[in-house]
Amino acid sequence: MTKEQLFDQIKKKHSYLCVGLDTDLQKIPVHLRDLEDPIFEFNRQIIDATADLCVAYKPNIAFYEALGPKGWISLEKTLNYIPKDIFTIADAKRGDIGNTSELYARAFFENLNFDSITVAPYMGEDSVKPFLLKADKWVILLALTSNPGSADFQLLQTDDGTDDYSRCLFENVLSTSKSWATDEQLMYVVGATRPDFIQRVREIVPNHFLLVPGVGAQGGNLADISRLGMNQQCGLLVNSSRTIIYASNGTDFAEQARAAALLIQQEMAGYLSRYLG
Amino acid sequence: MTKEQLFDQIKKKHSYLCVGLDTDLQKIPVHLRDLEDPIFEFNRQIIDATADLCVAYKPNIAFYEALGPKGWISLEKTLNYIPKDIFTIADAKRGDIGNTSELYARAFFENLNFDSITVAPYMGEDSVKPFLLKADKWVILLALTSNPGSADFQLLQTDDGTDDYSRCLFENVLSTSKSWATDEQLMYVVGATRPDFIQRVREIVPNHFLLVPGVGAQGGNLADISRLGMNQQCGLLVNSSRTIIYASNGTDFAEQARAAALLIQQEMAGYLSRYLG
Repeated sequence: MTKEQLFDQIKKKHSYLCVGLDTDLQKIPVHLRDLEDPIFEFNRQIIDATADLCVAYKPNIAFYEALGPKGWISLEKTLNYIPKDIFTIADAKRGDIGNTSELYARAFFENLNFDSITVAPYMGEDSVKPFLLKADKWVILLALTSNPGSADFQLLQTDDGTDDYSRCLFENVLSTSKSWATDEQLMYVVGATRPDFIQRVREIVPNHFLLVPGVGAQGGNLADISRLGMNQQCGLLVNSSRTIIYASNGTDFAEQARAAALLIQQEMAGYLSRYLG
Repeated sequence: MTKEQLFDQIKKKHSYLCVGLDTDLQKIPVHLRDLEDPIFEFNRQIIDATADLCVAYKPNIAFYEALGPKGWISLEKTLNYIPKDIFTIADAKRGDIGNTSELYARAFFENLNFDSITVAPYMGEDSVKPFLLKADKWVILLALTSNPGSADFQLLQTDDGTDDYSRCLFENVLSTSKSWATDEQLMYVVGATRPDFIQRVREIVPNHFLLVPGVGAQGGNLADISRLGMNQQCGLLVNSSRTIIYASNGTDFAEQARAAALLIQQEMAGYLSRYLG
């Protein structure tokens, strides 16, 4: 998917919501658990209930990998079920030496036809480049994550190569990596638990899309993120997983997921109207 | 597996060789490709040919993941075939927020019974801790990798929190993470293409095992690594993948793999004798 197609979806749906498909056998409603493929059945109903309210779906690959080979089959069925005009994110956080990253790219962009994959930056440029070889396929690089451990290394003061130590590691990750691809193929993960940092991110990458996790269960604030992070093409995908998909664990789970997604979408419509005009 | 059991194997086999199972359908001998599970058949013969010469096997998970669900089945069969006294490493380079890392730990330590997994440090402590919850299961944390991109971030001068900017990021990763677990559960990846850094690593983590990739195809030097990196319990696992498993692509591939592994093992026996006495 191109950046323009993504922005068109955002304008059409008045939404920059990404629904995280962190689908866990232990958490889905009891009445689904005896079905042949409960994970896919849950996802199918969540997608049916939310597809007109969101512009992206983000399966968290760990949840499928933890189920072994049948988890990959559920993932593939889910991906094929998502409407083609909705952006898909493999939240896999991969990254390895070049020939290995090539194989991960094959796994997620060829065998599975994801639009994008999340990638960890620690191993540098040649670990990321193999994911950028296909037009309209995206890397979403971890910059600032939303977990407590993000402070361990991402916030260390770091030399940028010019004896300037005023920047944190995540800022050097942004400034170095933005030359690896254009904003038509590269996005960044920027955690919502630290909205003050969104301004610092925007100083370095004004035009890139940011994938913002952590709204809802992790305590981010949609108003701050939208005010500080939105650019002229929206430039934000804000993810919510548990708040939406586990809004109810009864037979009304899909209906309640829709209600939770609708609340967020309506708030987003207001910000889009205010900041994009 | 405990550290003591691993060291016992090293003494018994006079070897600290890890064989990397980077098994690629495009590279295995033609005569295997029509079998029902060529990947497993290749691995089985490599294991039969090298099990008395090495102390660890390291399947590179990308190579299996790229094959979809059937790749996971080949991986599981391979893991079950490896003799139980040989250390197993899931080279997966995972790492995510806590509840997600828990699921990756389930995938590699429960569904698959690996002894260890490689983990990327960028997301910090709570992304690593879920892999440390089971006794005798190991995290092998990326510190200094062997690819060109390691220079992008791992070698940035970084404040360690005390306004001391003399250390590189990889050194801060070592000094911070070594408190997360003992050397009975934590090892580090340290690339062999920079043997001068092995001394700096040993100043920070004198007792931990180091997994050293990059001997052979990536150009590392076994003599330097062994002289600079060996400690009183050996403390080294040196990996070789392509040099061994693709020593020949004919019907003699297993025999040639054994010959290549034997050369390395014999060199290692010399270093063990010299440095451990």
